[in-house]
Amino acid sequence: MNQVIEFIKSDRLKEKPDLESLGFGKHFTDHMFILDYNKVQGWHSPRIVPFEPLVLSPSAMVFHYGQAIFEGLKAYKTNDGRTLLFRPDKNIERLNRSCERMCIPPIDPDLVLEAIVRLVEVERDWIPNKEGTSLYIRPFIIATEPYLGVRPASEYKFMIILSPVGAYYSGRQLVPVKIYVEDEYVRAVPGGVGHVKTSGNYAASLYAQKKAEELGYDQVLWLDGKENKYVEEVGSMNIFFKINGEVYTPKLNGSILSGITRDSVIQLVKDWGVPVHEERISIEDIFNAYKNGELEEVFGTGTAAVISPVGELKWNEHKMLLNNSETGEFSKKLYETITNIQYGKAEDKFGWTKEV
Amino acid sequence: MNQVIEFIKSDRLKEKPDLESLGFGKHFTDHMFILDYNKVQGWHSPRIVPFEPLVLSPSAMVFHYGQAIFEGLKAYKTNDGRTLLFRPDKNIERLNRSCERMCIPPIDPDLVLEAIVRLVEVERDWIPNKEGTSLYIRPFIIATEPYLGVRPASEYKFMIILSPVGAYYSGRQLVPVKIYVEDEYVRAVPGGVGHVKTSGNYAASLYAQKKAEELGYDQVLWLDGKENKYVEEVGSMNIFFKINGEVYTPKLNGSILSGITRDSVIQLVKDWGVPVHEERISIEDIFNAYKNGELEEVFGTGTAAVISPVGELKWNEHKMLLNNSETGEFSKKLYETITNIQYGKAEDKFGWTKEV
Ligand SMILES: Cc1ncc(COP(=O)(O)O)c(C=O)c1O
Ligand SMILES: Cc1ncc(COP(=O)(O)O)c(C=O)c1O
Repeated sequence: MNQVIEFIKSDRLKEKPDLESLGFGKHFTDHMFILDYNKVQGWHSPRIVPFEPLVLSPSAMVFHYGQAIFEGLKAYKTNDGRTLLFRPDKNIERLNRSCERMCIPPIDPDLVLEAIVRLVEVERDWIPNKEGTSLYIRPFIIATEPYLGVRPASEYKFMIILSPVGAYYSGRQLVPVKIYVEDEYVRAVPGGVGHVKTSGNYAASLYAQKKAEELGYDQVLWLDGKENKYVEEVGSMNIFFKINGEVYTPKLNGSILSGITRDSVIQLVKDWGVPVHEERISIEDIFNAYKNGELEEVFGTGTAAVISPVGELKWNEHKMLLNNSETGEFSKKLYETITNIQYGKAEDKFGWTKEV
Repeated sequence: MNQVIEFIKSDRLKEKPDLESLGFGKHFTDHMFILDYNKVQGWHSPRIVPFEPLVLSPSAMVFHYGQAIFEGLKAYKTNDGRTLLFRPDKNIERLNRSCERMCIPPIDPDLVLEAIVRLVEVERDWIPNKEGTSLYIRPFIIATEPYLGVRPASEYKFMIILSPVGAYYSGRQLVPVKIYVEDEYVRAVPGGVGHVKTSGNYAASLYAQKKAEELGYDQVLWLDGKENKYVEEVGSMNIFFKINGEVYTPKLNGSILSGITRDSVIQLVKDWGVPVHEERISIEDIFNAYKNGELEEVFGTGTAAVISPVGELKWNEHKMLLNNSETGEFSKKLYETITNIQYGKAEDKFGWTKEV
């Protein structure tokens, strides 16, 4: 492709937010990346421009038929002032897998990587450097063609916006979360779109999430849509169980997202010599392991929180209290190992980081 | 509620499109309706304003998490110059059911009806009066809050846009369509959101639709997501089978849309004294009825095409040719009865139309 990225600098830079109250996804930087698609020119006109509102027809197809996908990754500031990305190639691969499933034309991976790198370079000063903070990178694609009718759009925008962020779960890191096992509402099913990052999956999850919160839980653990028996994933995390010294996680079955943190955890754990099983896991088996005292730790994995220890798992009338609702050693070690790589404090033996 | 709808008249009226080449969902009228929501004011500031682009933050939640719903109904011009809506109360009820499932605050049904009526009145001249044409009405709601994080938004826009339309399937009415029975990809599953009109359902359907088109078919017939055995619905139509003089349609099982045309057809057919069965229907049973020569007619029902006769149904290696691929008498009678009511040519004994 080899398209040159145009750069239009903003002449009104915003004030940076207070590092203590960053939150997640509330503040946006001064610039954004845009790439347009139409049938004649393909993906064209890559540019970094001031962060500003989008102007779209009320008939833009994204509003009506939800043809939209996204990604999420982070840039980290190291103690010696370098900027690192974590496995951006994996996000770009997944972006194009989401494109394929949602009938959106794929984008040259090299251009996407260059766009991320250039935009992060431009916004270097926005990367917060307090412990646990980072610059969240949100690439996304929306169908912009003004047309009412169900078919793939012929016009799209690919954009990247950046948000300096603190911890995902209201300022807490590695604090155990309470999880509600949802056995009525369903997120995804094989043959559907649960394995890609399309916007509708998240809208579909809101109702059960709200119900869980009303019952005093932080997140939902989804079960499979066919039998309501097998463990799938949590809101925006994959799920892991440590049982009797070995690690279990649901296999990629076509209805759960292929998390990049999940993949990293699997590689690390194997590297430590601990057996990892990717398989179909019934919630019943988890409960039995719990009853037998073999369920040592449960944790979620995702870009936002990295590792999120689970302190309580509620399934029907059963309440499983894990590790005295404290953060387990294994979760902690994983969190520290991964974040040390992300922040350039530990050797990156897998070659996961990319310096900007 | 009793909110007054403000009206700002456009000072640049567009030229009306040629009636011969209306198509579907390509042209939009001069005005649109907008209603805003925030937590403090609730739904507020109803207004009819010039049709113009929306200005939204790139972080508006609809782009990322797909919290969006819509409706579709039509206004018809009668021969004596009156304007009729068809069962708008049903669309408004369904709109609020979609809101509920998608965690969007509900809207006062009276205000929605008033908005539709007022907007159609303002755009009266846009209602085409050629046979088979109408003014398509598209109410929709999108999450506009600028925030990255999965939770229900705290800001929304409810809008109504209007499009003068011809026939949905490229200019043809009552021409039999060819339908591909999809047994790999899945649209919806009980516990999911298939029974409401949320944008993500349509994005999720594109891939199978594209596959069907590549194989020479017009539309997909979805099977259930649990067993891939039971008939659900077509792209944007419910499906009916006439077998041995009786009518069968899948029951509302939580994963198919409760079509307003479906409901009208059921009422009409019952009124004619023909038995109607709403039940779980396996594709195998349909094929057996076909083999036995008992499958008399198959047709889809929906606002866009009203009645869409099916000329061919393809299931795996089986090709079912229906009624010699011609429009059946029953489909035709239904089409004529319903459109005659819609266009004010026949007595409206069910009280379905509402004059604007
Ligand atoms: C549904 C879902 N599952 C899992 C994940 C975790 O994926 P990753 O580790 O790539 O952030 C995410 C977040 O991206 C997600 O949205
Ligand atoms: C998925 C789906 N099924 C069925 C229908 C038919 O519904 P109605 O008759 O209300 O137009 C539609 C169209 O609205 C639809 O989108």
